[in-house]
Amino acid sequence: MRLSRYYIPTLKEDPSDAEVVSHKLLMRAGMIRKVTSGIYNYLPLGLKSLNKVANIVREEMNRAYALEVLMPMVQPGDLWRESGRWDFYGKELLRVSDRHGRDYCLGPTHEEVVTDLVRGEVKSYKQLPINLYQIQTKFRDEIRPRFGLMRGREFVMKDGYSFDKDEAGAEESYRLMFEAYKKVFSRIGLRFRPVQADSGAIGGDFSHEFHVLADTGEDTIAVCQNETCGYAANLEKAKVNAPAGECACKAECPAIEEVATPGKHTVEEVCAFLEISADKLIKTLLFKVDGEPVAALVRGDREVNDVKLRNMMGGNEIEFALEDEVKEWTGAPVGFAGPVGLKVKRIFADHELCASTDWVAGANKADTHIKHLSLGRDCKIEKFADLRVITESDPCPDCGGKIEFTKGIEVGHVFKLGEKYSKKLEATFLDENGKSKPMVMGCYGIGVSRIVASAIEQNNDESGAIFPPSIAPFEVCMISLGGKDEAVNEKAAELYEKLMEMGIDVAYDDRAERPGVKFAEADLIGYPMQLVLGGKGLKSGIIEAKNRKTGEKIELPLEGFAEAFTSWRAEIWQSWGLSL
Amino acid sequence: MRLSRYYIPTLKEDPSDAEVVSHKLLMRAGMIRKVTSGIYNYLPLGLKSLNKVANIVREEMNRAYALEVLMPMVQPGDLWRESGRWDFYGKELLRVSDRHGRDYCLGPTHEEVVTDLVRGEVKSYKQLPINLYQIQTKFRDEIRPRFGLMRGREFVMKDGYSFDKDEAGAEESYRLMFEAYKKVFSRIGLRFRPVQADSGAIGGDFSHEFHVLADTGEDTIAVCQNETCGYAANLEKAKVNAPAGECACKAECPAIEEVATPGKHTVEEVCAFLEISADKLIKTLLFKVDGEPVAALVRGDREVNDVKLRNMMGGNEIEFALEDEVKEWTGAPVGFAGPVGLKVKRIFADHELCASTDWVAGANKADTHIKHLSLGRDCKIEKFADLRVITESDPCPDCGGKIEFTKGIEVGHVFKLGEKYSKKLEATFLDENGKSKPMVMGCYGIGVSRIVASAIEQNNDESGAIFPPSIAPFEVCMISLGGKDEAVNEKAAELYEKLMEMGIDVAYDDRAERPGVKFAEADLIGYPMQLVLGGKGLKSGIIEAKNRKTGEKIELPLEGFAEAFTSWRAEIWQSWGLSL
Repeated sequence: MRLSRYYIPTLKEDPSDAEVVSHKLLMRAGMIRKVTSGIYNYLPLGLKSLNKVANIVREEMNRAYALEVLMPMVQPGDLWRESGRWDFYGKELLRVSDRHGRDYCLGPTHEEVVTDLVRGEVKSYKQLPINLYQIQTKFRDEIRPRFGLMRGREFVMKDGYSFDKDEAGAEESYRLMFEAYKKVFSRIGLRFRPVQADSGAIGGDFSHEFHVLADTGEDTIAVCQNETCGYAANLEKAKVNAPAGECACKAECPAIEEVATPGKHTVEEVCAFLEISADKLIKTLLFKVDGEPVAALVRGDREVNDVKLRNMMGGNEIEFALEDEVKEWTGAPVGFAGPVGLKVKRIFADHELCASTDWVAGANKADTHIKHLSLGRDCKIEKFADLRVITESDPCPDCGGKIEFTKGIEVGHVFKLGEKYSKKLEATFLDENGKSKPMVMGCYGIGVSRIVASAIEQNNDESGAIFPPSIAPFEVCMISLGGKDEAVNEKAAELYEKLMEMGIDVAYDDRAERPGVKFAEADLIGYPMQLVLGGKGLKSGIIEAKNRKTGEKIELPLEGFAEAFTSWRAEIWQSWGLSL
Repeated sequence: MRLSRYYIPTLKEDPSDAEVVSHKLLMRAGMIRKVTSGIYNYLPLGLKSLNKVANIVREEMNRAYALEVLMPMVQPGDLWRESGRWDFYGKELLRVSDRHGRDYCLGPTHEEVVTDLVRGEVKSYKQLPINLYQIQTKFRDEIRPRFGLMRGREFVMKDGYSFDKDEAGAEESYRLMFEAYKKVFSRIGLRFRPVQADSGAIGGDFSHEFHVLADTGEDTIAVCQNETCGYAANLEKAKVNAPAGECACKAECPAIEEVATPGKHTVEEVCAFLEISADKLIKTLLFKVDGEPVAALVRGDREVNDVKLRNMMGGNEIEFALEDEVKEWTGAPVGFAGPVGLKVKRIFADHELCASTDWVAGANKADTHIKHLSLGRDCKIEKFADLRVITESDPCPDCGGKIEFTKGIEVGHVFKLGEKYSKKLEATFLDENGKSKPMVMGCYGIGVSRIVASAIEQNNDESGAIFPPSIAPFEVCMISLGGKDEAVNEKAAELYEKLMEMGIDVAYDDRAERPGVKFAEADLIGYPMQLVLGGKGLKSGIIEAKNRKTGEKIELPLEGFAEAFTSWRAEIWQSWGLSL
């Protein structure tokens, strides 16, 4: 593409509403423009990158026997009522009535539509498995859209759904998608990590998120540093093993005793006042799990993992108790809850608490705590279990190795849905014995537009973005410094044609701009390779070639250019971990 | 693609709600499925065809220097208020409020968004022209969606918008798009016709519709049969020249005379009662043009063309007078309006009426008409002009040749918008003299999903669809009759691989179905080429090749297959008017 015929409205300044680097650079490089909060136009350069990502996704999906379809953006409310999500989904679901007053929503996801499609067609186990995907525009009415393409309201997603006749089939479909996702992210050229994620009621290891690693990521993932182990999980999911050794919760302990802690509500305040460290104190958190009151105990220096608590109880929904409920259940203001005398029947404790005794805890009485609490003696714990959020000082649950926290951007998710939708929407088939069964489903998402942003989050410097060659808007930018020198411009035009013939996706900056402007814009946009043609170089028969990532410059000879360029190009792809 | 791994849920019966052949066959061939009224899923086969159309459109747009972007489906109401269309567009515009109560609409078209985008970036004439297009899902809340993909609510469209610094530039942009559209439809392989269409306030010949010719088309177009002329226009636009010869409207005529026509309201009733032919009677139609009362006179056997009337008056909106208005303006019930004594100041007559005198017309009095009306003598006609709808007995307005009516399906439209949106949205630039001017715009649409349907409307037979090879879901279907004969199946697999290597988009029907089922489905889906491998043929070293369109079968030798196939394929493409 000759840039004189192209449209790249770059900006000199960061837009005032841009908080993260990808948002700033996508705007400054003329790749996107804001229409309104969380809604963007993709300009030619941005769309080109988006389409390259989409094509890699498409190729790997097709290779894994998934079939591409296109489902509608506007979905009937009735299908969402059937699944129960019409009432459950909340305000992110944008609802709309048509001219006849019928309900619709803009699809944030397509489980209902795809299940409705398949239930209409599939009658027999012989027609299974089926795996359908689409690359499509989605809408979620985020309460606070921000970060440009990272968390928009309208965005492009690949969403796929598999239908199998049994668990074994569903697990094989899951495995195929898991492997395909690894190939997708490898081919895109980003440093990524599949991490275990919560699989809710399904259980098992059938939920993985794929994270692009970037310091600016919003998510934290726990990664084992032992390379042969490879354990990685998000914080919701990451297991903490029970401490080694005998249970100490019934060990000897002085008699329980009340202590006045006037106005001391927080762990910090109580510990300072009583001159103890937080690991000597028990924190009592109150929840409702599917409406039932529940208490969870963890050490003062730990955090309760509510997802673990909910899953252990086999619940669907977990909420913090409201202030009034806390008061009712404890008989005290907020800040003085404890396991002794609590009007909550079900009390669970993190298994770490089993390893010690003689605790401090709230007394369920205003301005009062208790000392010398023995969990085995003074109260009834229904179960000791893994209930807390992992920390970097915990060992890896698989190998005991060192856990480190890393920041990631979630760009993909594979998930075994089981029979959740097929039961509600009655998507059944006749099995080998003529028995009607619900299909076993899986769902698989990739945030296509988010990948473009996360590529920049992971790869940028003070001059601008640095795109992996596989998804760069153009792989090569050729800059002519000829100005009005016809000999240089002719040579440049010739070389441009040659690169096109070689099948290279090249931008030829033939604009009447100063060299400094051209260099700065090429760096800003982040084409991985730059070729510079100047009068001086031409005379000596050379072209300057710059690797945007390393800044390294080499000289390519005009004589035998194709060969020299091809080998330089292969090196650059290789340096991104990519093969041509 | 091996069909054993594919998903083509064919239907034996026509769906009950399908009225047109494309809807029936798209459903039966497993290409689409209905989600709800006017909203469809594209199944793998349907999406493949859709994408082939989209790619041809994309290539020709790019070649004509249009740049691809992607604008959002959800658009802010405020932009539509700026253009004035928020109130004007009516119920086809699906409006929605977000969680914060802000107004949005689902984009039926993108003039507002694209003008907003360009006004934010373009400051100088040096940045013009710009031509941006997108291939995107649109939504129009049709009151009565029907005919499958022909008139859906959610559909795929290519819409493009050009911005120029002056009229000459806008006309050149228009011309480029007009030529590109001709290439698009030629490459798709459909019989089509660009026809002149109404360009409203813009005037001139800057509105063309592209119609796929099909007997089942909803639109009627007037086409000159003189091939060297080539005149073609839609009925709104088609000119009717003034009759040759002198004006006769002031010619001698007996004195005007009332005649009782009790209960005779319609042209037919009056003519039968008075025993005259309809061409002796004047029909008086009453309108409001931008709110102003207007009468239009045409011969009893003609139809008023309200678009011509509106354009002649330079109006924006034309409506029929309501019943109460007719009564007020005529002083009589509906059915007795006439030009004499009418309380409407502006009366226009079709120029054909100038060629004769001694007319019958309504008397503006219940149950009464007048005879011996002379338009030149008895009433005041503001202007005689071309005001009626063309008929097949009218001569071609350009060459006098024979006009015939043809049915067409509108699949494209190129239109010079002028300054309509740029003025309202203040999309201005500084010209060569530093003067601020509104940009001159054009807009260009192609109904991508509608093309898939119209290809079937134009090409089908009792066995099913017949796709042009350029947009067929697969170009070739290879059917193995091997059953359990491993030798045949091996040979088939080998040939399939060979075709894939040759870059042929081939479906290999390797399913365990009876031959009859495979043949019927291949015909139903309408792959343009079929290759049949049977045990018998294989022994004699031949493969049967069938041209779906003609039904013609030939034998291709296994020895030297590639060459023989390539030449047969080229012939088939050629028979569709396509080059490879």
